[in-house]
Amino acid sequence: MSLLVVGTVAFDAIETPFGKTDKILGGAATYISLAASYFTKKMNLVSVVGEDFPQEHISMLQKHHVDTTGLQVIKGGKTFFWAGKYHNDMNSRDTITTELNVLENFNPVVPEAYQDCEFLMLGNLVPAVQQAVIKQLKKRPKLIVLDTMNFWMDIAMADLKETLKMVDVLTINDSEARQLSGEYSLVKAAQKIIAMGPKYLIIKKGEHGALLFNKEQVFFAPALPLEDVFDPTGAGDSFAGGFIGYLAETQDISFDNMKRAIIFGSATASFCVEKFGTENLVGLSQEQVDSRVQEFVDLVQFDIALV
Amino acid sequence: MSLLVVGTVAFDAIETPFGKTDKILGGAATYISLAASYFTKKMNLVSVVGEDFPQEHISMLQKHHVDTTGLQVIKGGKTFFWAGKYHNDMNSRDTITTELNVLENFNPVVPEAYQDCEFLMLGNLVPAVQQAVIKQLKKRPKLIVLDTMNFWMDIAMADLKETLKMVDVLTINDSEARQLSGEYSLVKAAQKIIAMGPKYLIIKKGEHGALLFNKEQVFFAPALPLEDVFDPTGAGDSFAGGFIGYLAETQDISFDNMKRAIIFGSATASFCVEKFGTENLVGLSQEQVDSRVQEFVDLVQFDIALV
Repeated sequence: MSLLVVGTVAFDAIETPFGKTDKILGGAATYISLAASYFTKKMNLVSVVGEDFPQEHISMLQKHHVDTTGLQVIKGGKTFFWAGKYHNDMNSRDTITTELNVLENFNPVVPEAYQDCEFLMLGNLVPAVQQAVIKQLKKRPKLIVLDTMNFWMDIAMADLKETLKMVDVLTINDSEARQLSGEYSLVKAAQKIIAMGPKYLIIKKGEHGALLFNKEQVFFAPALPLEDVFDPTGAGDSFAGGFIGYLAETQDISFDNMKRAIIFGSATASFCVEKFGTENLVGLSQEQVDSRVQEFVDLVQFDIALV
Repeated sequence: MSLLVVGTVAFDAIETPFGKTDKILGGAATYISLAASYFTKKMNLVSVVGEDFPQEHISMLQKHHVDTTGLQVIKGGKTFFWAGKYHNDMNSRDTITTELNVLENFNPVVPEAYQDCEFLMLGNLVPAVQQAVIKQLKKRPKLIVLDTMNFWMDIAMADLKETLKMVDVLTINDSEARQLSGEYSLVKAAQKIIAMGPKYLIIKKGEHGALLFNKEQVFFAPALPLEDVFDPTGAGDSFAGGFIGYLAETQDISFDNMKRAIIFGSATASFCVEKFGTENLVGLSQEQVDSRVQEFVDLVQFDIALV
């Protein structure tokens, strides 16, 4: 069994009301892999960086159980770079700079050794690139999870809808669910989106938690109330990473196990936002993760006996 | 034992994206009493209406176990009237009309027969009036719950802060918690507010659920994802009514029982918003309430065994 993570590995420069960073490590696949590493010990990565990408970051990923054979390093190329600034409420942000660089001509190649993929996590990318990865796999994975965003709904909706037919779980935020479905009610939106292909839909609501839907059931997990959200960058990807990492490790894709996976994803995301960038996702101990999960249990569990 | 409910009994005219009403029954104490009636069978009401208030509404409240001895009917007076229009997202509204009428000179009088009050629910009112009720009680109730709003923070903060010192539980929404505390983080806001007097704070987040804090613990209950929210009027009061009604009936004010009470409050609020005004809070069956509570259990319960 193995987990294949596809997505960006990048540089970010982030400004929040709490401070700002120079170019630091970022990218969807980076957050996903680091988050998943606390649950599963075997991960493969398909992504692309430029020659400017430091070996220390690659070594750090490898230390977190990530096989980087599928990480293309483009000679003379520059790594994807995003700079953004969060507003005071942390719920919205402005993009200051987007330099696609090596991402512009990214042609994902799944190494032969990755063909045993049973769990596939497609981080936010051009839908056609996500699709190309699925098509390269000779055997369909047990579970394909797709993350995407409003940007692709604006400029590549047809490709996105095509890709949606090929996946099992879609993760998007609440405004994206409304945009994709044309429904304001998230309950109605979920049923329309499930009719588009994915059997499961996760609607991420940031500080307001996350909803998991299938055709008949719904589950809700809150976000942990935190003293400070320092930097929301990567929260959604950390959530997805914890989710798929737990599923890959337990090999159980029942709705009940997905509920657990969502709690582990939420716990991982809660670490992510407490510091800038990936800083707080590096080198967490099992005790830290367990104690955070216990906080979720304490936060929502109650005991009502109905007759 | 008995539950005393203090607050407005009023007329509302409501417009939402789904339709509009003429003058219908409204008022904080009305919603609170109706909601509480599904949990406790003995309630006393202190409020005021005008001569224009129909007997059928009073009879309906009595049928829901409400003693109306403390409901003043002012000869020649007109009942408090509010008209409002909700925006498309249902999270914000404009006030079209506020006619205070008999509320302007409301001087609450607690009847002698109500002096056995063990649970006191102070619905949103002028803080000085809420305080006057507490002072009329010869024996301090076992639990005093206070609801208030940003309006009183704007014009009567000193009175409000004085009143806060006299109560056990405060219920406000997230933006009011931020206004009252001057803290954006709800975790920090909660601790500052608890230092102002109340031992417990409930932060209502509308469609995003509710948080219960004491000095050491936090509990979160989601709102039920609904196909349509028809009319949010009274949701917060129905929530408070279900909460205090359950506590009054069980006579248990431990944190664990408050968690249960919050789930019952959330369930009652979810009925409220499915129709206009109080319509859906009249004549619910025990089966309907139980089945709604079961939906909350299914929505949030998961099973994680940590070693």
